[in-house]
Amino acid sequence: MAGSSFGEVFKITTFGESHGAGIGVIVDGCPSGIPVDIEYIQSKLDRRRPGQSDVVTPRNEKDQVHLMSGIFQGHTTGTPVGMVIYNTDVRSQDYNNLKDLFRPGHADYTYYKKYGFRDYRGSGRASARETAARVAGGAIAMKFLEMNNITINAYLISVGKIKAQKRDLSVIDQNKVRCPDAEIAKKMEEYILALKEEGDSIGGVVEVIASGVPAGLGEPVFDKLSADLAKAMLSINAVKGVEIGDGFACTELKGSENNDVMLPDGYMTNHAGGILGGISNGNDIVVRVAIKPASSIKKDQNTVTVDGGAVEFNITGRHDPCVAVRAVPVVEAMMAITLTDHFLRRRCNLA
Amino acid sequence: MAGSSFGEVFKITTFGESHGAGIGVIVDGCPSGIPVDIEYIQSKLDRRRPGQSDVVTPRNEKDQVHLMSGIFQGHTTGTPVGMVIYNTDVRSQDYNNLKDLFRPGHADYTYYKKYGFRDYRGSGRASARETAARVAGGAIAMKFLEMNNITINAYLISVGKIKAQKRDLSVIDQNKVRCPDAEIAKKMEEYILALKEEGDSIGGVVEVIASGVPAGLGEPVFDKLSADLAKAMLSINAVKGVEIGDGFACTELKGSENNDVMLPDGYMTNHAGGILGGISNGNDIVVRVAIKPASSIKKDQNTVTVDGGAVEFNITGRHDPCVAVRAVPVVEAMMAITLTDHFLRRRCNLA
Amino acid sequence: MAGSSFGEVFKITTFGESHGAGIGVIVDGCPSGIPVDIEYIQSKLDRRRPGQSDVVTPRNEKDQVHLMSGIFQGHTTGTPVGMVIYNTDVRSQDYNNLKDLFRPGHADYTYYKKYGFRDYRGSGRASARETAARVAGGAIAMKFLEMNNITINAYLISVGKIKAQKRDLSVIDQNKVRCPDAEIAKKMEEYILALKEEGDSIGGVVEVIASGVPAGLGEPVFDKLSADLAKAMLSINAVKGVEIGDGFACTELKGSENNDVMLPDGYMTNHAGGILGGISNGNDIVVRVAIKPASSIKKDQNTVTVDGGAVEFNITGRHDPCVAVRAVPVVEAMMAITLTDHFLRRRCNLA
Amino acid sequence: MAGSSFGEVFKITTFGESHGAGIGVIVDGCPSGIPVDIEYIQSKLDRRRPGQSDVVTPRNEKDQVHLMSGIFQGHTTGTPVGMVIYNTDVRSQDYNNLKDLFRPGHADYTYYKKYGFRDYRGSGRASARETAARVAGGAIAMKFLEMNNITINAYLISVGKIKAQKRDLSVIDQNKVRCPDAEIAKKMEEYILALKEEGDSIGGVVEVIASGVPAGLGEPVFDKLSADLAKAMLSINAVKGVEIGDGFACTELKGSENNDVMLPDGYMTNHAGGILGGISNGNDIVVRVAIKPASSIKKDQNTVTVDGGAVEFNITGRHDPCVAVRAVPVVEAMMAITLTDHFLRRRCNLA
Repeated sequence: MAGSSFGEVFKITTFGESHGAGIGVIVDGCPSGIPVDIEYIQSKLDRRRPGQSDVVTPRNEKDQVHLMSGIFQGHTTGTPVGMVIYNTDVRSQDYNNLKDLFRPGHADYTYYKKYGFRDYRGSGRASARETAARVAGGAIAMKFLEMNNITINAYLISVGKIKAQKRDLSVIDQNKVRCPDAEIAKKMEEYILALKEEGDSIGGVVEVIASGVPAGLGEPVFDKLSADLAKAMLSINAVKGVEIGDGFACTELKGSENNDVMLPDGYMTNHAGGILGGISNGNDIVVRVAIKPASSIKKDQNTVTVDGGAVEFNITGRHDPCVAVRAVPVVEAMMAITLTDHFLRRRCNLA
Repeated sequence: MAGSSFGEVFKITTFGESHGAGIGVIVDGCPSGIPVDIEYIQSKLDRRRPGQSDVVTPRNEKDQVHLMSGIFQGHTTGTPVGMVIYNTDVRSQDYNNLKDLFRPGHADYTYYKKYGFRDYRGSGRASARETAARVAGGAIAMKFLEMNNITINAYLISVGKIKAQKRDLSVIDQNKVRCPDAEIAKKMEEYILALKEEGDSIGGVVEVIASGVPAGLGEPVFDKLSADLAKAMLSINAVKGVEIGDGFACTELKGSENNDVMLPDGYMTNHAGGILGGISNGNDIVVRVAIKPASSIKKDQNTVTVDGGAVEFNITGRHDPCVAVRAVPVVEAMMAITLTDHFLRRRCNLA
Repeated sequence: MAGSSFGEVFKITTFGESHGAGIGVIVDGCPSGIPVDIEYIQSKLDRRRPGQSDVVTPRNEKDQVHLMSGIFQGHTTGTPVGMVIYNTDVRSQDYNNLKDLFRPGHADYTYYKKYGFRDYRGSGRASARETAARVAGGAIAMKFLEMNNITINAYLISVGKIKAQKRDLSVIDQNKVRCPDAEIAKKMEEYILALKEEGDSIGGVVEVIASGVPAGLGEPVFDKLSADLAKAMLSINAVKGVEIGDGFACTELKGSENNDVMLPDGYMTNHAGGILGGISNGNDIVVRVAIKPASSIKKDQNTVTVDGGAVEFNITGRHDPCVAVRAVPVVEAMMAITLTDHFLRRRCNLA
Repeated sequence: MAGSSFGEVFKITTFGESHGAGIGVIVDGCPSGIPVDIEYIQSKLDRRRPGQSDVVTPRNEKDQVHLMSGIFQGHTTGTPVGMVIYNTDVRSQDYNNLKDLFRPGHADYTYYKKYGFRDYRGSGRASARETAARVAGGAIAMKFLEMNNITINAYLISVGKIKAQKRDLSVIDQNKVRCPDAEIAKKMEEYILALKEEGDSIGGVVEVIASGVPAGLGEPVFDKLSADLAKAMLSINAVKGVEIGDGFACTELKGSENNDVMLPDGYMTNHAGGILGGISNGNDIVVRVAIKPASSIKKDQNTVTVDGGAVEFNITGRHDPCVAVRAVPVVEAMMAITLTDHFLRRRCNLA
């Protein structure tokens, strides 16, 4: 109920803070027989890790994963997969000047009001560092989906007002911002570096597509596949919106324009983003995720202290100028976990 | 796991199909001592019921609620509140010509693939009729929030490309489309009636604001208030997108523009829509919901049959030309249920 | 979290009080394609209903079930099965003299302390009347298990110190107490009638055996099949103990005596009651359930009032002299629900 | 759903196998502000650890706990408490001769049937080593209950046919078997050592009493406090039965004998074991737990191999002659976790 778990059958539970001993994840409900090794998991973590390029935070964490349980002789055993990542590049002193004030846009005030207390070092549990645990858990899901011929690709389609015009999946990992449009990617990088210089940050949109998803995934009422994907995405730090298929754009369409006609050899269009009545229809699942600009900026800002007084302050820690960049593998992981969960749940539908 | 329940502490579970005996809801985890009577619940249902005006479906259901349990001497007792609504205006024969084909945009195909079987009468469980059960359950939540000085208002802010320019809450229930802009409301009504004549349908956006929500609601990681609201909204029929606060618009902003500055006497802005780090910050909670055009249109359409053959068909049942109109009280109900749930969950945060 | 639901995949949620409008159940997660009709469900309810013989309470409820949803053309559809039973033979005035005192052995005091409030009419939600809803839900589970060649039989093996010496399943429904020993059954009946005359009550033990359960059901750690069965049984009114296989008796055995030796053609013994490490081993599942004497007796008793004063009182309502008799079909239902749930959960164990 | 979690609000999730890298636990839903340090947690683990005396297994694990998260400046922060214990004294080679056969009384066969696969080293996940993770989590619960003046004491009341005659809590930690009867404790020790010599094992009964529990804990229907305690206890390795208060003995009583009379200054008796209608009544909670003899004995035994052939074999690993001894702190931990969970849940009962 405290919300550190996600999924019903394939369930991940995470723990850990940005500046504590480390973070970790338990994957419970993982089917036995999935071939998975530590190198594969690590390769997923490397795509998310800080310090990987000059457009992300310089905090230099290797994010090395330690496998604690649930894998034997190269396969999952059916028992919980436990994984731990130690924090190694911690500079908690950067936060000393922040411990008595509430940074705007951050969870400082809300945690304080909730727990009467907060671990102020690097945002504590509210840090996006927690998402490394999701990526580790998502790697197992990814392998399971691979066995079932489902593939997932996420990528950055906008940074501020700069928007990708193409969806060339082959270039995603060839640029630092994970954009499927090589030309636009360069503009995004330049823009982010300029903002970094300026001490500011910028928002962005991540799109994710799952292909090969069979029809029939998702539960009809509250646990619609679309509803669970929405929750999955909004649970990621800094996410403020989500849409499935045409999303907000379809509110301007007529039914006669928006209905995806079925022909004997398949759908003519995919306005629905692969989900009808909350259940996958065999088309690609298409989701877009709105990510706000990072709240940590190196500009003088006004706020209030724990005692309610006005104060001006400046953030000196290490931060991402565009958190949407590193959100890409996290969005993939959450898509993978949600699909794996519903893939397994679907097995219980027939007598 | 089959997803007919929503909420962790304050939990509703619904049942029922569009053309079966009836529908209903159980509210489990309802605190004792909430003053609530059947007239109040009925008044909420009346705002959602079909046949209430010429811009909604003419199916004429009174949606009369029968209280089965959990209320004694005018107050909730702490035990589950059971409520039943019988279906009375059923015309199942309207669906005879549809039982062997998959209507585009509907859940026909996805239910068929999921269950190997479907109740084709009026979309069965996939019908938005199910949302009446949510409104009944939401009425209890609404009363609880009232006791805690929290108010919720939802309203229609766009129909197709026609968009409200004002937020005058006093006019919402004075027009048939529940728009907070009286002038625009008239245009919306005219447009919807024209489309109805044409046999087509149109999408729309519903906005909902919760005021008086204390800081501290929402769980930090997966059960962020924003994540649970997103799930709540996407679980409503025809919803394809959701955003909190500025939502997708904030992806074009810099951190220095998007951070809501705190002053000793409150926030200067509310870009965040009242939620930071997944937890309410005391500001108004603001959510927008994208609703697609109804899939049922009275135009000739092409599709495939259960046997995979091509077919042209025409829908003759009774339908809403703009489902967003009747979604307004459903969005309110889901907001009320989600907030009540997190209000109660919040009681467990401190030792 | 308020505990009106049981099961993870195959989940029942019940509502209703003894003297309100009625009771009911929603079965969510019910697989599609189970052949089930209202007569079958009613036949199960008839085995539990009050007024069926002179050894049970004379309250004369027909317990007629109304099917609300989830069944179409004689089969479950995969959507929730909703069922309602109206209360018809209510004599609430019998409870007027009890509303300000706490009957010993009853839940009066505990409900009062919990909710600050109670529905004093016939024990309200604490009444065993709630178990009719379980039996209705259990009937669906029973049909599912039948399809999978699993059979369940519960029966009364002791009333006070009178204990069955045989397990002749063919006679269970041929005597009023549902004892598998025809001769002992007569003694039990006589004893119960004598106690009824006296205005007293007596405890008993129900045993239940499930045959045909495949190996592999149950989750390894907290959701052991044995643990979930224990919870299922202890959730039934008046149950104070449970044991699996040899249960308490095995605490006096050595490992060399208690281990069930496996031979190529099967187990030599079944001390374990069909469960090893929390998982079914293919042997019969054997569970025994201890049921206390009904707290409602027609003798003068001492207790305290809501105001804390001492008082002597006498109960005049209609009650069972031996609640263990009518618990038999409830124990069967809870076994059926638990096994169906784990049967479905088991489908998610392999990649 | 895979059952590695326990509790609804105060929820522990465990991972780890007997011979893998280690084991661990996440406590989610832990309220903020509980004073707890690593020494306290370690002291609880020391009571359960192997190698502590000659009546338990000689496997010499220090069971040193590593705190990963959720505690800051000596108090819980409200975020998940993560703890890891590495395995250090592993002798996996002891199990080489067992990997192709199914040890009687063990979970070998059931895991194999469930997962098509098993980690044969020291029983893998089925090892009681998992319970160390529960004890670590339970320590946090214990501190919370202490803050609320609730105390828990478990102790061994029988080993085979040797039964404690007294309940002198002061001697529990002064003998190796944790028996509240010093004289009987000696007999138990001698008997266990004799059996150890013989290569056999023996069962036992653990009793646990919780004092200071306020009235009102437990949910009325399926999540009765008694039902959740039954599940908690049956989830512990080797447990085959549980009873509340008089338990099975009350089945031989009349209602007039079994009802606990309330007087203005309290209950006259406690047959109910502190729970009425599934809800605590303010009296001591009393539970007894039946623990079977360990299945690992050093005698020649017959069984079958993975291929179905008959085989005689001998176990050479290190094992407990009476697992009930080390179950005492585990029973305490499960009682503490269950009570803490319901203590928090109870906060949601009133409007």
